[in-house]
Amino acid sequence: MVSGQHAMGRLVSALTKLPGVGKKSAQRMAYYILQNELDYAVELSESILGAKEKIRLCSMCHDYTESDPCHICSDERRDKNVLCVVEQPKDLAAMERSRQYNGRYHILHGVINPRENKGLESLTLNHLLSRVDESIEEVIIALNPTVEGDTTAIYIARLLRPLGIKVTRIAQGIPTGSDLDYFDETTIAMAVENRREIKE
Amino acid sequence: MVSGQHAMGRLVSALTKLPGVGKKSAQRMAYYILQNELDYAVELSESILGAKEKIRLCSMCHDYTESDPCHICSDERRDKNVLCVVEQPKDLAAMERSRQYNGRYHILHGVINPRENKGLESLTLNHLLSRVDESIEEVIIALNPTVEGDTTAIYIARLLRPLGIKVTRIAQGIPTGSDLDYFDETTIAMAVENRREIKE
Repeated sequence: MVSGQHAMGRLVSALTKLPGVGKKSAQRMAYYILQNELDYAVELSESILGAKEKIRLCSMCHDYTESDPCHICSDERRDKNVLCVVEQPKDLAAMERSRQYNGRYHILHGVINPRENKGLESLTLNHLLSRVDESIEEVIIALNPTVEGDTTAIYIARLLRPLGIKVTRIAQGIPTGSDLDYFDETTIAMAVENRREIKE
Repeated sequence: MVSGQHAMGRLVSALTKLPGVGKKSAQRMAYYILQNELDYAVELSESILGAKEKIRLCSMCHDYTESDPCHICSDERRDKNVLCVVEQPKDLAAMERSRQYNGRYHILHGVINPRENKGLESLTLNHLLSRVDESIEEVIIALNPTVEGDTTAIYIARLLRPLGIKVTRIAQGIPTGSDLDYFDETTIAMAVENRREIKE
């Protein structure tokens, strides 16, 4: 143990707060920082503050961005008639990697979660409603298929359908390249329900 | 992807250099930093630079320390007649956790490794030789049981034995609470070789 070493304990404790970092990996990271050149510590330290300082939320889609509106919202080649609702910036990044979607986004920054006392006011739902005007034809809900995601999806659908907007949700099923045997019965049941006819 | 976002790319790339951190976990960490209060980013950033600034190597044992000599080397209750040689500061920490050892340490900061072109000059071997005086009765080698660790252990033993110093090595065997079936033949062979008589 590095007991009695205030600077080391402070660094390990700050690193342990990062997601997926336990005490052991935090210590390994701290040793790495100590072993390396000062240049690396400066770069890591400055990039943390730099990101926090320069990156804000896009006033349209609420994604992290350095320029407002972000590069997707300001891209004229993107379809203005479709809006995809996701929970977090990382979900937007996942959608973009699929290269299957060319519309715009709206990030909720959460889902309705009564257990965490996360209600409607903490989400960007009001802003979603105000963004939806006559130009929007379809809202694709790409929330994660959890109980909270399902609840939020139904809530959004009930808000938007009266406005004459088509509300869809990305399909739940078996991931490509995986094994049926690996999945729980709910996933299989949803995959069966979402089945599609094979057309030649 | 957060392409076109210089500050984000810079942060992810700095985080990816940490041991055990891939691109995916670096992105998760970056999002965590962005989502959290500025206070956390400042604390993390300052603790990195603070550690690098305040922590140096102990001039006796070469462990990381804020005060020189470190708290172990300056502890009068520790046995001055025994020296334990380890590879890295984390190995010293592991030895200390065992509470089985009350002597002092010497950290090599590496082992002899021809493949990585790591030779004797980059280690603290010369300093080890100069530390070993008539007061030292035993040097316990606690290097990891790898080919490089073995080579280095034998090298050190050959240096110290002519000086009339007892050189020992911590035992190789089966870890407590584990299953024989799990280990390779070399480990089992070493455990058999290191067997001890059961005394009532």
